Amino acid sequence: MSELPDGWETRGKLPTLFRRFDFEGYRQTRDFVDALSALSEAQGVHPQSINFGSTYANVTLDPNAAGQADRDLAVRINALYKPAGV
Amino acid sequence: MSELPDGWETRGKLPTLFRRFDFEGYRQTRDFVDALSALSEAQGVHPQSINFGSTYANVTLDPNAAGQADRDLAVRINALYKPAGV
Repeated sequence: MSELPDGWETRGKLPTLFRRFDFEGYRQTRDFVDALSALSEAQGVHPQSINFGSTYANVTLDPNAAGQADRDLAVRINALYKPAGV
Repeated sequence: MSELPDGWETRGKLPTLFRRFDFEGYRQTRDFVDALSALSEAQGVHPQSINFGSTYANVTLDPNAAGQADRDLAVRINALYKPAGV
C-alpha cells in the first residue's frame, strides 16, 4: 500500500481511513465540521462518519478509502485543519 | 428518576442521555445536524458528542443530562427531528 496522507491510519478489514482532529474549543470544532460539510458538497463525496464533541472530531472515510480518490479527500480534509497553537 | 423525553435513554454511570435519529439520506442528516448546531448556539449548550453518517445521527448529552435543563434540550432536539415517512 502506498503512503497514507499525514495523520491518517487504516482501520478494519475492508479498511477505512481514520483520523482524529483536536481543537481548542467547541467553536473551532464546529468551524471544522462546517468546512468539512462544505467540502463534501463541493466534492460530491462525504465521510462514512464524523463523530465530534467539544474539542475533537473523529473522521472515518469509506471502505474504498484505500483508493486514490479517498486519499485525495483525506489530503483536502487535512488542509481544513488548523491545529491549536499553530 | 422522572420520565425521559421520547426516544431517549440514559447510558453509563454518570448517566448520559443518548438517542439515535435515522434519516432517508445524507441531505436530511446534514439538515438535522445543522439545525442542532443552530439550536446549540441559541441555547448556549451543546451535546457531549454527535456521531453522524449518511443516514443517522447519534446524539449524547452531558453527564448532568439527568437534570431538567438537559431534558429540555432533548425535547427541543426531538422537535427538530422529521423522521422518514412522517
